[in-house]
Amino acid sequence: MRIALGLQYDGASYAGWQIQANQLTLQGELERAITAFIGEVPGKKAPIQTITAGRTDAGVHALGQVVHFDTDVKREMYSWVRGVNSYLPKSIVVNWATEVSEEFSARFSASERTYIYALHAGPCRSPMMNERVGYVMLPPGAWFDVDAMREAATCLIGKHDFSSFRSSECQSKTPVKTMYSIDIVSKEPWLYFRIRGNAFLHHMVRNLVGSFLMIGRGKRKPEWMTEVLAAKDRQMAAPTFMPDGLYLAKITYPPEFAIPGPWLKNSWLPPSVIGA
Amino acid sequence: MRIALGLQYDGASYAGWQIQANQLTLQGELERAITAFIGEVPGKKAPIQTITAGRTDAGVHALGQVVHFDTDVKREMYSWVRGVNSYLPKSIVVNWATEVSEEFSARFSASERTYIYALHAGPCRSPMMNERVGYVMLPPGAWFDVDAMREAATCLIGKHDFSSFRSSECQSKTPVKTMYSIDIVSKEPWLYFRIRGNAFLHHMVRNLVGSFLMIGRGKRKPEWMTEVLAAKDRQMAAPTFMPDGLYLAKITYPPEFAIPGPWLKNSWLPPSVIGA
Repeated sequence: MRIALGLQYDGASYAGWQIQANQLTLQGELERAITAFIGEVPGKKAPIQTITAGRTDAGVHALGQVVHFDTDVKREMYSWVRGVNSYLPKSIVVNWATEVSEEFSARFSASERTYIYALHAGPCRSPMMNERVGYVMLPPGAWFDVDAMREAATCLIGKHDFSSFRSSECQSKTPVKTMYSIDIVSKEPWLYFRIRGNAFLHHMVRNLVGSFLMIGRGKRKPEWMTEVLAAKDRQMAAPTFMPDGLYLAKITYPPEFAIPGPWLKNSWLPPSVIGA
Repeated sequence: MRIALGLQYDGASYAGWQIQANQLTLQGELERAITAFIGEVPGKKAPIQTITAGRTDAGVHALGQVVHFDTDVKREMYSWVRGVNSYLPKSIVVNWATEVSEEFSARFSASERTYIYALHAGPCRSPMMNERVGYVMLPPGAWFDVDAMREAATCLIGKHDFSSFRSSECQSKTPVKTMYSIDIVSKEPWLYFRIRGNAFLHHMVRNLVGSFLMIGRGKRKPEWMTEVLAAKDRQMAAPTFMPDGLYLAKITYPPEFAIPGPWLKNSWLPPSVIGA
């Protein structure tokens, strides 16, 4: 039997999604909790292995992560939610569980991924939101040129070679991805980027956000984004922006799999950003 | 010279405002940072002593805390902000500094205090908001009876003996306080209480919130709040609700002191809750 789970997590204290030796990882914690719930012997080679839609980096959060795993253990679906949650730390929550067909892969069936980057800017940090938002120090009264950033976004829509925004550690087979939309929501002193594409390269969203902010702060013209994209050269774009404000918001699957949507209302993000 | 500072802090990792031996406290961190900024010798008996508007408890946050202190050290006001911030941990931020007359006391000049309690409710926690909101587990589709809570709130408005909501450790001279308003904002799965009064007893807001939730969950009728208030007996009200969602939002002073308002927009709370 194949089961899919929907997850939310605060990635601040994790070394990222993927299991690594001697590191606290989200995958490690999830597989440990599932194993404990089904009563397998801890220490035995993990009997449950999860496949994820998006292997988030250290410090990156998720509002709508999806994983699947195979098991012979039979439980009611709500028991998977409550049972696995009871073995998870407070920083990770299972929102839903559903049985899926053997054709479903959390990773390979995904047709679309949505990331949200939440940024706070102004003279002082918001102490309540450390590690939950990116931060840019701006003098009192200053704000970004949002129109310039929106103008710059237009050149990125569609199918492009995004090599200029790709980290050297990226394992993707191709740098060509399709960008469906980039929405920029400005609510001073908060700024949100909602970025939707078929798939993303390693560090791509953070590299895009860093580049948008160069334009939003007037250090580059909107046309610069077109030049960066065309160059296919990582040296051209801005440095990788901090992970703190990055949220894997939604994974979209073909409707025949009947995968539940993400619990976006279970986040602090405003309705205009989560589309509620 | 007397200086007032406006502060925000994440109280999650502190034993509360007030200095205590061998405990991490907000007052301790602030006085250490001010002392470091003015270049006094650390270890010397604190040359700066701050007086605060509200001595928040362990785990309670502030969006608009106000303190004052006396000093002979002369600095530009923006230097007090940037300088003290540079010695503070990320969980505490100074938003503003202003010189005030010797008649001003952060504590005794305050005419009004506003607290906000932020609550999340539903089948699963919001992992991003641990220690930043209170949480009540509700089954899918369930919600509070908000009208019943609003009805219950009416009996609390005005001047009353709030002994039923007073902790046994309360040091206030009198249990008689004046409640100006209680607004309840419902945005499923979030619920906010904004409570405004001249002053508050120890644990009063958390005891009120606990009692409101008994009514909102249908365990008590709205009239029960009137009975609890009239009883002047702490045994009558609900247990003290968790500190996690409590924010000291605003301290109001007579206009002649020209004290800046709190930087409420520098919080994750929605505009309808902060009144922005």
